[in-house]
Amino acid sequence: MNLDMIEAAAGRLDGHLRRTPLLSSPFLDDIAGRRVFVKAECLQHTGSFKARGAWSALSAMDPDLRRKGVMGFSSGNHAQGVAWAASAHGAPSVILMPADAPALKRANTAALGAEVVLYDRATEDREALGTTLATERGLTLVKPYDEPLVIAGQGTVGLEIAAQAAEAGVTEAEVLVCCGGGGLTSGIALALEGHAPGLRVRPVEPEGFDDVKRSLAAGSIQSNNRMDGSICDAIVTPRPGDITFPILSRLCGPGLAVSDEEALRAMALAFLRLKLVAEPGGAVALAAALLRTEEIEGDTVIAVISGGNVDPAMFNRALTSYGSA
Amino acid sequence: MNLDMIEAAAGRLDGHLRRTPLLSSPFLDDIAGRRVFVKAECLQHTGSFKARGAWSALSAMDPDLRRKGVMGFSSGNHAQGVAWAASAHGAPSVILMPADAPALKRANTAALGAEVVLYDRATEDREALGTTLATERGLTLVKPYDEPLVIAGQGTVGLEIAAQAAEAGVTEAEVLVCCGGGGLTSGIALALEGHAPGLRVRPVEPEGFDDVKRSLAAGSIQSNNRMDGSICDAIVTPRPGDITFPILSRLCGPGLAVSDEEALRAMALAFLRLKLVAEPGGAVALAAALLRTEEIEGDTVIAVISGGNVDPAMFNRALTSYGSA
Repeated sequence: MNLDMIEAAAGRLDGHLRRTPLLSSPFLDDIAGRRVFVKAECLQHTGSFKARGAWSALSAMDPDLRRKGVMGFSSGNHAQGVAWAASAHGAPSVILMPADAPALKRANTAALGAEVVLYDRATEDREALGTTLATERGLTLVKPYDEPLVIAGQGTVGLEIAAQAAEAGVTEAEVLVCCGGGGLTSGIALALEGHAPGLRVRPVEPEGFDDVKRSLAAGSIQSNNRMDGSICDAIVTPRPGDITFPILSRLCGPGLAVSDEEALRAMALAFLRLKLVAEPGGAVALAAALLRTEEIEGDTVIAVISGGNVDPAMFNRALTSYGSA
Repeated sequence: MNLDMIEAAAGRLDGHLRRTPLLSSPFLDDIAGRRVFVKAECLQHTGSFKARGAWSALSAMDPDLRRKGVMGFSSGNHAQGVAWAASAHGAPSVILMPADAPALKRANTAALGAEVVLYDRATEDREALGTTLATERGLTLVKPYDEPLVIAGQGTVGLEIAAQAAEAGVTEAEVLVCCGGGGLTSGIALALEGHAPGLRVRPVEPEGFDDVKRSLAAGSIQSNNRMDGSICDAIVTPRPGDITFPILSRLCGPGLAVSDEEALRAMALAFLRLKLVAEPGGAVALAAALLRTEEIEGDTVIAVISGGNVDPAMFNRALTSYGSA
C-alpha cells in the first residue's frame, strides 16, 4: 500500500468522482480559536467518501470477475458506494447490511441497484457471513477498508486536501478524519505524507468506540468492547484493519474521541455555518475541531466531513438540541 | 449592463469568492424525468450568491467613499453579503432589515460586523428610509439588485454554470433561477447569452409573489399586491428592477411559480439527495425543476439553489413534512 496506488486510483476516478470543496466560515474559526477548513466529502456521489474506494476497486477488477458481481458488507455508506460503482460498471451487487442501519441507507442502497441482505450486528459475524455468501454466488468481496484498492480510492481525498490546502496557503495543519476501520484515515495519511508533509492526520472516533485511538496509544491493535449503542453508525467497526493500522501507527498523531452530543452539535454547526448535511459519524472530526480545541495543536485545523446520509429524525434532533445560532 | 462588466467582476472576485459545485443525483433525475444539475450557491460565503454582488460593488468603489461606509436594505442575504464584503474591505456597514426577517439572518448580519436597523415590511417604504439614512450618514447605498455592479457580481454564477455545463457535456438546457428583483437572474442570463447560448434562463418565484412571471407575460413591469405571507422571504420584492427587467424580457423564457409546500419539498430533497441546506426562497428553482416538469422543455435542467440561510424550525418543518425518502 503506497502513494503510487493512490495516484493510480486518482486516474481511474477522474471524471467520475467529485473533487469536493474545502469550505470555511469565520463563525467556525471563532468557535475553534484557530482557522478551520472543512473538506465537504458529504457532497460526494452517494453522500460519502465511500464512493471513491468502491469506484477504485470496481474500476481495477478483472472484467470477467466483475461481470459475475460484487459483494459488500456495510452499515450503509460503503454499501451505497459499492452499489453505485457496480451499477456504473454494469456489475450486479449484493450488500450485507446490519438490520439496524438507518432506513435511508437501506433504501438508497436498494435504489442504487443492489440486493440488500440484512444481519444482526450484535450477534452475527459479518465477515464470516460475507465470505460464505460471496463463495456461494461467485461474487467478489469488496472489503470496506482493509483492502489496498479501497484505501487507494479513499486516499484521493488526501490528494485533494493537499492541493486545496496549498491553494489556501496552508502548509502546516492537523487534519482530523472520521475513523472507523481506518481506510479513509490511512489513505489520507499516505497521500499527505507524499504531497503535504506539514499536514498531520489525526483519527477521530465516537467515545466508547475508540479502538483506533487506543490502538495507537498501545502500539498494537485493540478492539471495541461492543458494536452497538452509538449514533455514529457509519464509523463503528470492531477494530482497526491489519493493513490500515500499521499505516495509521506510522503516520498519525494521537486519536481523539467525541461524545454523541458533540457530534450532534457539530451537525447543527455544519447546518448553520456551512449549509451542509452531515451524519453523526461524518461529523465527529468537525466536532473535535470545534469542541476539543485544547487537544489540537497549531493555528489551522482541517476536518473531513465524511458523510451526510442521516435520517431526518436524527437531523431534527441535532437542530432541536443545538440549532440556535 | 453587459457581459464585459460580468467578466470584470469575475476578475475582482477571483480568490475571494467560491466557485460553487454543480451537483447531481440519479434520484433527482428519476423524479424530474430528465437530467437535473444543481448549482449549489448556498455553499457560497455567507450562505448565498449575494456575497458575489456585494463584493463586486465594494471592490469597485472609490476607496475614500468606501471608507465612509456602505448601506444595504435586505431581508437578510444581501445584508450578510454586504456586511461580509464591507468587513473584508475595511468599510463600516449599516443594514436596513425588515423586522420579520429570520432570526438567523439578523444575528449573522450583526456578527459579520454590520449595524442592523429594523423596519416594518408592510407599512414602511424601505427605499425612502434607506435613502434618508444614507444621506444623513454619508453612506453609499449598495442596492440589492437594480445596480449594474451588483448584477455583474451575480452574473459570475452564470459564467461558472456555462463552464461547468460544458465540462458535463451539456450544451442545451433550461436554467431555472430563484428570482426576486432579478439581479441574479439577469446576470446569469447575460453570462449565458455570451458563453452558453444553448442555455435558456427561466425565473422561478413563489406563487402569489410572481411579479417577474407576470411582467414577462405582460411585456411591462407588474407589481406584487402584497409583501408578506410567503415563507420565501429571500425573494419577495415589490417588482422587477428598471435595469433587470429589460434584460429578463430580452433573454428569459416564461417564468414559473411554485407553492410554499413545493419549496419545502425541494428543501427536503436537497437534504436527502444532495446533502445541501436550502432556504425556502433558495429552493424554488429546484422545486420547479423537480415538481413542475411539464412546464419545462428539453432533456436537461439546471437549477440554482441560491441560498441556505434558514432557521432550524423552518428546516425541521420541511423534513417533517417531506423528509421520507
